[in-house]
Amino acid sequence: MKKRVLGIDPGLANTGFGVVDFENGRYRMVSYGVITTDSSQSHGERLMKIYSHLSAIICEFEPDEAGMETLYFAKNAATAMSVAEARGVVTLCLAQHSVKLEEYTPNQIKQSVTGTASANKELVERCVKLLLGLETEPKPDHAADALAGAITHINHS
Amino acid sequence: MKKRVLGIDPGLANTGFGVVDFENGRYRMVSYGVITTDSSQSHGERLMKIYSHLSAIICEFEPDEAGMETLYFAKNAATAMSVAEARGVVTLCLAQHSVKLEEYTPNQIKQSVTGTASANKELVERCVKLLLGLETEPKPDHAADALAGAITHINHS
Repeated sequence: MKKRVLGIDPGLANTGFGVVDFENGRYRMVSYGVITTDSSQSHGERLMKIYSHLSAIICEFEPDEAGMETLYFAKNAATAMSVAEARGVVTLCLAQHSVKLEEYTPNQIKQSVTGTASANKELVERCVKLLLGLETEPKPDHAADALAGAITHINHS
Repeated sequence: MKKRVLGIDPGLANTGFGVVDFENGRYRMVSYGVITTDSSQSHGERLMKIYSHLSAIICEFEPDEAGMETLYFAKNAATAMSVAEARGVVTLCLAQHSVKLEEYTPNQIKQSVTGTASANKELVERCVKLLLGLETEPKPDHAADALAGAITHINHS
């Protein structure tokens, strides 16, 4: 049975997404990219773009489930707030399309993709490339992180 | 000319709203209340309820503009994150309905409603009651805070 998972790395400026199929024990990359919003626009306009583009991605690829990284408020509070607002819109959009969402800690994702929870960003990207059989490492970082979220969800299912 | 303002006090568990008209130098309370969500439901389901109820409120009352309190990450990080997610959904919903949103700091709201930035919650509620000519103080707190946001936006327009 095939399972299609949408991974998301949400943010107000850049929301990465990655669609991965898992069938007969193999991963297959379906699509990935980034929804980018313009800082000259209002907060509401930027959230509307994330919402409408994510809705279009869900309608096009019809994922069965979704995986996303848990948010921690370790770093900059203002950045964390705008990430959380984007996360709220992403969570709403997935629920409206009945796509079940699971969240994973950064360590769970690193462990799941690379085999070690202490992996750095470069190792995560290299492992995403290898697992999905890509010719180059997926870019930008937000898309790679989204694909890592999708792989993690597949591994936990 | 009449202006109708929607004040919002967002939160995952309780999102207060208050609709206030301003005409000929006078405030008039149109409606207020709270959108409450059940903690037994998923995050996505709770955000969907906030989104759908807020959409219904906007369609019913057709506010011209909206006022909301700025979020600070002073207190509990987990609470702040869920508030920020609800704020993202509220901001999205207002933008989709073309309702212009302005944000105000807690001190701006206290100053605007009571005349002093150091006012406590009780004084804010008493002043909201007086300004809107209500018989009792608006309850619960989230609804009173939303009405205070609406009054502040009117005073700043």
